[in-house]
Amino acid sequence: MAESQNMKDLAHARTKVSFDIKDMTNFLHGGEANVEQRRYIIDLIAKDPVFNKDDWGWLNHTDAVKRGIAMSTRLAEIKMEHDLNDLDFATMMEAIDDTLPIVLHNGAFIPVITSQGTEEQIEKWIPPAEKFQIIGCYAQTELGHGSNLSQLETTATFVKETDEWEINSTSFTAAKWWIGGLGALCTHAVVQARIFIEGKDYGAHVFVVPLRSLDDHRPFPGIEIGDIGPKAYNGFNKMDNGFARFNKYRIPRDNMLMRFSKVSREGVYTKPPHSKLAYGSMVLLRSVLIKQMALYLSRAVTVSTRYLTVRRQFNNPTSRNDSDLNPGLETQVINYPMVQNRLFPMIAQSYALFAAGSVMMEMYIGLMTGLSSGNIAALAEVHAMSSALKSYCTTFAVAGVEESRKLMGGHGFSYFTGIAHLFASTVPSNTYEGDNYVLTQQMARYLLKEVKTARTEPEKVTPYSKYLLLGLNRSAFSRTTCSVAQPDDWLNPAVQLAAFEHRCARLAYELSDAVEQGGLDTANPKTWSDHNIECYRISHAHAQYVMVLWLIQAVRDAHNPETDVERRAEPASVKVLERISNLHALHTIQTNLADFVEDGYFSPAQCQSLRAQVKAIVASLADDAVGLVDAFDHPDFLLNSALGASDGDAYKRLWDKAQSEPLNRRQVCDGYEEYIRPLLKKHGEFKL
Amino acid sequence: MAESQNMKDLAHARTKVSFDIKDMTNFLHGGEANVEQRRYIIDLIAKDPVFNKDDWGWLNHTDAVKRGIAMSTRLAEIKMEHDLNDLDFATMMEAIDDTLPIVLHNGAFIPVITSQGTEEQIEKWIPPAEKFQIIGCYAQTELGHGSNLSQLETTATFVKETDEWEINSTSFTAAKWWIGGLGALCTHAVVQARIFIEGKDYGAHVFVVPLRSLDDHRPFPGIEIGDIGPKAYNGFNKMDNGFARFNKYRIPRDNMLMRFSKVSREGVYTKPPHSKLAYGSMVLLRSVLIKQMALYLSRAVTVSTRYLTVRRQFNNPTSRNDSDLNPGLETQVINYPMVQNRLFPMIAQSYALFAAGSVMMEMYIGLMTGLSSGNIAALAEVHAMSSALKSYCTTFAVAGVEESRKLMGGHGFSYFTGIAHLFASTVPSNTYEGDNYVLTQQMARYLLKEVKTARTEPEKVTPYSKYLLLGLNRSAFSRTTCSVAQPDDWLNPAVQLAAFEHRCARLAYELSDAVEQGGLDTANPKTWSDHNIECYRISHAHAQYVMVLWLIQAVRDAHNPETDVERRAEPASVKVLERISNLHALHTIQTNLADFVEDGYFSPAQCQSLRAQVKAIVASLADDAVGLVDAFDHPDFLLNSALGASDGDAYKRLWDKAQSEPLNRRQVCDGYEEYIRPLLKKHGEFKL
Repeated sequence: MAESQNMKDLAHARTKVSFDIKDMTNFLHGGEANVEQRRYIIDLIAKDPVFNKDDWGWLNHTDAVKRGIAMSTRLAEIKMEHDLNDLDFATMMEAIDDTLPIVLHNGAFIPVITSQGTEEQIEKWIPPAEKFQIIGCYAQTELGHGSNLSQLETTATFVKETDEWEINSTSFTAAKWWIGGLGALCTHAVVQARIFIEGKDYGAHVFVVPLRSLDDHRPFPGIEIGDIGPKAYNGFNKMDNGFARFNKYRIPRDNMLMRFSKVSREGVYTKPPHSKLAYGSMVLLRSVLIKQMALYLSRAVTVSTRYLTVRRQFNNPTSRNDSDLNPGLETQVINYPMVQNRLFPMIAQSYALFAAGSVMMEMYIGLMTGLSSGNIAALAEVHAMSSALKSYCTTFAVAGVEESRKLMGGHGFSYFTGIAHLFASTVPSNTYEGDNYVLTQQMARYLLKEVKTARTEPEKVTPYSKYLLLGLNRSAFSRTTCSVAQPDDWLNPAVQLAAFEHRCARLAYELSDAVEQGGLDTANPKTWSDHNIECYRISHAHAQYVMVLWLIQAVRDAHNPETDVERRAEPASVKVLERISNLHALHTIQTNLADFVEDGYFSPAQCQSLRAQVKAIVASLADDAVGLVDAFDHPDFLLNSALGASDGDAYKRLWDKAQSEPLNRRQVCDGYEEYIRPLLKKHGEFKL
Repeated sequence: MAESQNMKDLAHARTKVSFDIKDMTNFLHGGEANVEQRRYIIDLIAKDPVFNKDDWGWLNHTDAVKRGIAMSTRLAEIKMEHDLNDLDFATMMEAIDDTLPIVLHNGAFIPVITSQGTEEQIEKWIPPAEKFQIIGCYAQTELGHGSNLSQLETTATFVKETDEWEINSTSFTAAKWWIGGLGALCTHAVVQARIFIEGKDYGAHVFVVPLRSLDDHRPFPGIEIGDIGPKAYNGFNKMDNGFARFNKYRIPRDNMLMRFSKVSREGVYTKPPHSKLAYGSMVLLRSVLIKQMALYLSRAVTVSTRYLTVRRQFNNPTSRNDSDLNPGLETQVINYPMVQNRLFPMIAQSYALFAAGSVMMEMYIGLMTGLSSGNIAALAEVHAMSSALKSYCTTFAVAGVEESRKLMGGHGFSYFTGIAHLFASTVPSNTYEGDNYVLTQQMARYLLKEVKTARTEPEKVTPYSKYLLLGLNRSAFSRTTCSVAQPDDWLNPAVQLAAFEHRCARLAYELSDAVEQGGLDTANPKTWSDHNIECYRISHAHAQYVMVLWLIQAVRDAHNPETDVERRAEPASVKVLERISNLHALHTIQTNLADFVEDGYFSPAQCQSLRAQVKAIVASLADDAVGLVDAFDHPDFLLNSALGASDGDAYKRLWDKAQSEPLNRRQVCDGYEEYIRPLLKKHGEFKL
């Protein structure tokens, strides 16, 4: 068919891109091999009808869960057929693009047993789990308790006579709640419960608990199971988040995972040695989230960048980028500076997330290698770093997804943008794996220790906290100012990093002072929670600092011949990457400007020139925007967006999607005879 | 039944409230009479089964639209039975708590005909519309065009021979799109189309267009109608937003509304006199939105404040507020300073929105009174003000609704908070009635005119722009600094207003300078759109200034014996209102701190003491938080929230809601035989 103006506009925009998109894609995904493997996996899912997304917009929770179960079992089969590694499995989940009842089987059930079970327990449970003869979930959260494990209300009482545990949910607030896979699918659960032996409370421990009969899937007597109902924004709609209450439910003693703590036949309890692995798995989950945020935010900006390139509205006399097109046409919305200044910084943030995701993964692998050889040196820092980055990245990335949707104006409110579904399934990341506000206390605690180290053994401060040394001489530090004299000085990575380091150092010492003084204030003694606002500030400041640093380093490495080829990029790509890195650094400063100016580090004139510089960099990226999002390499199946498809045919696709609305199968709507006609006729007929 | 700990906690919190909640409610809603009328209307809706909300979480778009039609026709009947005024009708819509296919009949169809039709046309269309013998919608937006009326693609060509208009949608991008009520319900539409007479384009005009037969509701030949499909987050789920394409569709000449423009039998076109009323209706719609935002944000913070009061997690050694309760209990989440510092400023914003909503309404009424007597003096300012406030208020209020949901942690992601539905139905307000970014250009344009006035005829500057006089002596102005010396100085309204005035004046003159210089820059001439970022900044700065001013004035009036009793409050209430007003002003400054410090107006020490003062005021409101949200007087039917109900029985209600999940009607889930069993048995049975 004839090429629409929409398609022409997107194609034309691609002719202006200053770099090779393939080259940029390889840089982002760590080499051509990864890119091809990712495409292969996504195609694998795309061609399987059970994963088709066409009717998702109309599924209510009841229908969605049934679909989720169909998708889950197919996912299990594919996993067995292709014996995929973790990375491929993650890509498969990315392609499926929704959380499924089965995800915690491989995501938590198996890992928990493997890491906390004895050899015999692993031997007993893992082989059937690998073959999906049993399907498990992870049951920790309760109606009344989430994060505070020590107060869980589910109890496991040792029954010496029969060598069993009796699991009890004393009240309905003890019900396990939010447990993914529990509502409909799973046959087993790993359950957190507080153990009691002869009346003594030994705290929370982990048990393998059979839930449903393997013959007919009925819940066993003594277990009350159900689905907790629909979720916000139709998020997790296919997931059977469930609840479970136990009433004197008996399981064998050795269903308690005993690698660390043990309970003998006689009911003798043996304490665990402190388990490092628990931390390791938290670090992993949070590090994976950074990578996922890169994929999510980049998807959202891909859709909005393409749509805003083909959407035309009003005439901007000197709109530059399409002056070479038919002047009779309205202006492409993406050519309005206001739009560019909202959109392009999010493209830069996406690139920063790709870089940060890789570094966090390397840090995690380094940590685990260390731990396996008993070296726990890195644990504290990596744990704090993963916490700070999880909090910061999931906060701005999810907000960016919604901002991308709003950028699309009226049509942005259609389900067919594909972005609403993305927001609904990513926004809980701000809460799970540690609430984004609570989590920031980890980095703050770590930095307070580092402040002490800086004062006592400065040489022992870890690299990412080196900025603390700047503040050792407080009076000199308080006089420090930013060195920018010319607008172009802002483009110097050293200048950018110096600003972030100064801000982090100041906030860290201010927190440290406040904690010390707060302790002394006997009249109104401060507690840790009185400092949590400042913990949040320093934690996000540190996260922003390393995000900026890591993108700068990734770009530097990209044109370093010493670097592995997978992480290199061609000069044309590097040129644009440097702009992206500058925009990311300077826009992050602008968004948090008060932190840089309130102590006099920036002068009024510098604030003005910073804002001007951000506008200039944004404008310089206009011709490359479409190329920069194409480079994320998100296929149409993944985007599932009428407005953001790769061919740019936005209006036609939106029109076609509307035709598929089930309501449109009837000329006269359901409810006419029952409701509309009686109203119209109530006071007699109106004659035209 | 026995009172749960949840219920005890909320009841206990109410014993600490320092003011009379009834008194505060009367203050907020403008007197006892309004409060009682509002409750009466909400009860009217609450007791009518068609408006029951229990199953909303499970309705897909198809079912929801049918429900929306049932609700629409009942709404029409109630309107006729009770002959309700606009305020009561608005309250009815508030109680119904979802947008319905019929809302634009009274909201746009009737008003447009009344304001733009001739006496004969009004006589012909309004009586049947009032009796719902015809039901209408408003069709302006098209697939390819929203805001840019002059480029609409729907055409109406005059056919002299038959004295008719021929309506055409040249291509599918000309299809009317997003039209509420069009998809299923309406028999008529007011349609915007560009008229052509003998080949000449006279621009967009308004037509009354019959859509569906009054006999069988079938669309007339030549009209293709349908529903555009589901929307983001299941928002507007019961609304049949529709599309329509016209193919040589004929209507009589006098179906064009001709109060302003006219087309004679001979096809002679008469120009309209400039219509003030068009502006008037825009001002009304935007002013109403401010009031609605007050109701929406206050609902969200009511839910989160109550839930966080009954939710207990972890033990905070010196948590103050419940030290008088059983010390064995965990800390109420609302007692964590981080939580208070996120939540309480939104309570203060809600109070500010109530005040701003009333003032905007008064301004609108004043404007219309003026216009009716030909006085257009106030038009420019009121139009700019309503635009700036619409943009600012819908932005932060909707963001606040989502923030309230996140504040509730894990359970906040349940549909049963009631807040997700609220966000989904309020977030489009950031786009409709003028996109929140585009809209800020109105206030910027107005202030640029005021800058000129300030320079030439300073005495003619309107009251809300008086701050521009501060900047007339630029060198003196640039040396101005904030007068705060002691922490308590921040509590002086004059100090607060001076800060906002200084900031507005600086941003206004910076914009004015940039526009002048930009025009001179011949090398790279700037256009208006190059200044839109600065337009956004000054427009929001001005909106924040008047919001702060209006709340200060409302509180001042509240204890002024001269004030009408409806707007007065008791001393105990005023004491808390002053804290609320201080928190609103100072938190707004803190959130935008860079604007106040980047030119040296605030000193580093002042920034520190400001942050400390905000924390102090927040802490001082802890005992009153529950009372402050109770005072909004949102009944449980309206909140429709398991976690935020007035009795505080959050866990029990969440449990009960989960039991109502349709999936739980079956012991074994749908899909077991088809999907789960085959997978479990694939590699033979696992024996426990």
